[in-house]
Amino acid sequence: MPTGTLHFDGHDYADGATSDPITLGWMQGSPPPADKLIRFEDDDTLSFPKIRWSLSHTRETVPTAAIWRGQGAPSDLGPVDATSQAAIDALQFDDMHGGRRIWADTLADTYTDGIVVLHKGRRVYEQYRGALRPHLPHSCFSITKSFAGTLCAKLVYEGVLDDGKLIPHYLPEMAGTAYADASLREVMDMQIGVAYSEAYSDPSADIWNFARAGGLRSRGHDYDGPKTLYAYLQTLKKADTHGEAFAYKTVNTEVMGWVMKRVTGVGLADMVSEQIWQRSGMEEDGYITVDSIGVPFGGGGMSAALRDLARFGELMRCRGAVGGQQVIPEAVVADCNRGADPAKFAKAGYKLLAGYSYRNMWWVTHNEHAAFEARGIHGQRLYIAPKADLVVARFASHPIAYSAANDPITIPGFIALGRMLQG
Amino acid sequence: MPTGTLHFDGHDYADGATSDPITLGWMQGSPPPADKLIRFEDDDTLSFPKIRWSLSHTRETVPTAAIWRGQGAPSDLGPVDATSQAAIDALQFDDMHGGRRIWADTLADTYTDGIVVLHKGRRVYEQYRGALRPHLPHSCFSITKSFAGTLCAKLVYEGVLDDGKLIPHYLPEMAGTAYADASLREVMDMQIGVAYSEAYSDPSADIWNFARAGGLRSRGHDYDGPKTLYAYLQTLKKADTHGEAFAYKTVNTEVMGWVMKRVTGVGLADMVSEQIWQRSGMEEDGYITVDSIGVPFGGGGMSAALRDLARFGELMRCRGAVGGQQVIPEAVVADCNRGADPAKFAKAGYKLLAGYSYRNMWWVTHNEHAAFEARGIHGQRLYIAPKADLVVARFASHPIAYSAANDPITIPGFIALGRMLQG
Repeated sequence: MPTGTLHFDGHDYADGATSDPITLGWMQGSPPPADKLIRFEDDDTLSFPKIRWSLSHTRETVPTAAIWRGQGAPSDLGPVDATSQAAIDALQFDDMHGGRRIWADTLADTYTDGIVVLHKGRRVYEQYRGALRPHLPHSCFSITKSFAGTLCAKLVYEGVLDDGKLIPHYLPEMAGTAYADASLREVMDMQIGVAYSEAYSDPSADIWNFARAGGLRSRGHDYDGPKTLYAYLQTLKKADTHGEAFAYKTVNTEVMGWVMKRVTGVGLADMVSEQIWQRSGMEEDGYITVDSIGVPFGGGGMSAALRDLARFGELMRCRGAVGGQQVIPEAVVADCNRGADPAKFAKAGYKLLAGYSYRNMWWVTHNEHAAFEARGIHGQRLYIAPKADLVVARFASHPIAYSAANDPITIPGFIALGRMLQG
Repeated sequence: MPTGTLHFDGHDYADGATSDPITLGWMQGSPPPADKLIRFEDDDTLSFPKIRWSLSHTRETVPTAAIWRGQGAPSDLGPVDATSQAAIDALQFDDMHGGRRIWADTLADTYTDGIVVLHKGRRVYEQYRGALRPHLPHSCFSITKSFAGTLCAKLVYEGVLDDGKLIPHYLPEMAGTAYADASLREVMDMQIGVAYSEAYSDPSADIWNFARAGGLRSRGHDYDGPKTLYAYLQTLKKADTHGEAFAYKTVNTEVMGWVMKRVTGVGLADMVSEQIWQRSGMEEDGYITVDSIGVPFGGGGMSAALRDLARFGELMRCRGAVGGQQVIPEAVVADCNRGADPAKFAKAGYKLLAGYSYRNMWWVTHNEHAAFEARGIHGQRLYIAPKADLVVARFASHPIAYSAANDPITIPGFIALGRMLQG
């Protein structure tokens, strides 16, 4: 394998350092030369290595709604201590394939754009690479789901929503779909039997048609599919049964978000702003992509500054409280952290995620640090390990969508980090 | 005329209060009903009364780049004093047609979405209406030009640009166009003879094709015109001579912005952030629409929070200095304020703007308060009156694009306000 090259799924890719988008000159020039252009209309903004630029610039290619931070001062995460940074860089651990890894080297190997580590709420490590800057929001992809799931669980806790109710109770439009006999709880925990493929590596997978409906991919002139997220959801047909097994389908989050909007009248951008961003000491506005009728993409549309993602993790680590204020009810956080039935999760066949469960749109590890995490394609991760007083927020632009491409490094790395900090 | 109705250009329009977009329910519901939808694809976001919602929500319909505010605390504009607010509301003046006006009533008559008045740098009046909120950026339209023109004048002052050079010196691509023999100075002062119509009321006017090239209007499936701002500029042909007369053409700003980017390597969004937003105590991020290759629309794409627009005005009133820091060179501000030759301006035939001139993309009144102003279609205005220690920032969503629709009220109103505050 050539130096600076990594091998995945039968292909060679320039590694994180070699594919640096600034060095490669993407979107530089006036105008940028044709071979350095990244355009929505070319429908390849997520192709490698364009993705290394794109994930820090989503709003420049599609419509978005602001997630306003409010007017308060940002919360203090403390300075990054050079000693702790060096100690973490030197951390050694074995990856899942038995190879010895040094933390500092894994940043390039996982195509990390930025990573912040909080221990007991203080920054002990922070790095930015590629196109990311501290103030620049980066695509969260499915980490978005965990924001939405937490807020939905809060609405259930408050009695605004009843998670035992079937979806058509809230959305009569969904009566003729896969969701006719699905409970809100089954949706929140992704135990829905629906004919819908989330195979990112397959260009004909349903996820890409869903993205097209939501305005996140170019449609082409002959497009005659659904033109909104809601319209797409109403085409979904049942497959298998509900409540039997975990099955990761982004459309579930959209159904959940639609219920939340229908009942509260508040869209996800405003809800995340009012319930989380304005109450958690965030330092930058976030944003979320919206479809042609302004509906935020709850399944994967958020972008946030890295430190603000870490602040959300810290809020969850601290049982929903920050600065003496209970932002998310403690019972809701406990429910997310406790997880669901690992036996139902196991049926989904994730070889690298043995013992996990999925609850309120969180991935629950059930590991030695009682960690739960939010995960997004191409390497996005928010890892919360209460028993190690640890939060890791990481943005990446990995060539491969599946988290399985970085999990063999990331999973043991984060556990090793927890053990070291627990020291 | 029915109550709550105003008459313009042979049509009746619901007035500012009656056309309130929140009351009318635009974009409310999940999904909004068909008759309350505002969509980019319908190509009518600026039609009345949809415009009353649209101008506070531009980013939700098109791609945008952030104008980052930086990390500092917002500058203090002081509290709004109820006494001064009431005094201004009671101000009476004659409009240009000789009708008696009361300030408070003119807000609905000019479709004001928000207005802030600063006297000696302190807020003496502030109002928000319709869809606008203090933190929400509102479309500036051509006020954008005055930001860009000020920064270009700064580059000339610093010797980075030579305003005596012809455009092809910087942009060889423009050698075959109207700008082949145009100097940068002639561009900055809009004294260019170019075949291009800016008649907003004419759906076939060139301005709309320019907007289509820039991705700001829906193109339709059979569109085969230019797909970027730069590509459009290269189609422009000469008409008349340069340097003889003021002729307001948005494309001039785009040519100027292209020169600025070509020479500095910094795009307008970043330049406005670094040179103005991060150094002037702004409280919110602004943003600017971008075309399909990420080029900001310098001729009219900015959105800003109202108070931040006022802060820019205050910076200009204070000769480029804020908080003891010289943000814009005093000589540059003086050059903007001094204006150009009113005789060249007069040739453009603006009946309501007698005695004006145009310099560095600013409209210079040469009135008793030495006021200069930034103007945008549908009622956007930043009015800076040094001799009255006055700044007025106003956002509006007037049914008519032309400022002539509100100038008969606005021009005498702002002069009367200056006299009142001068005491």
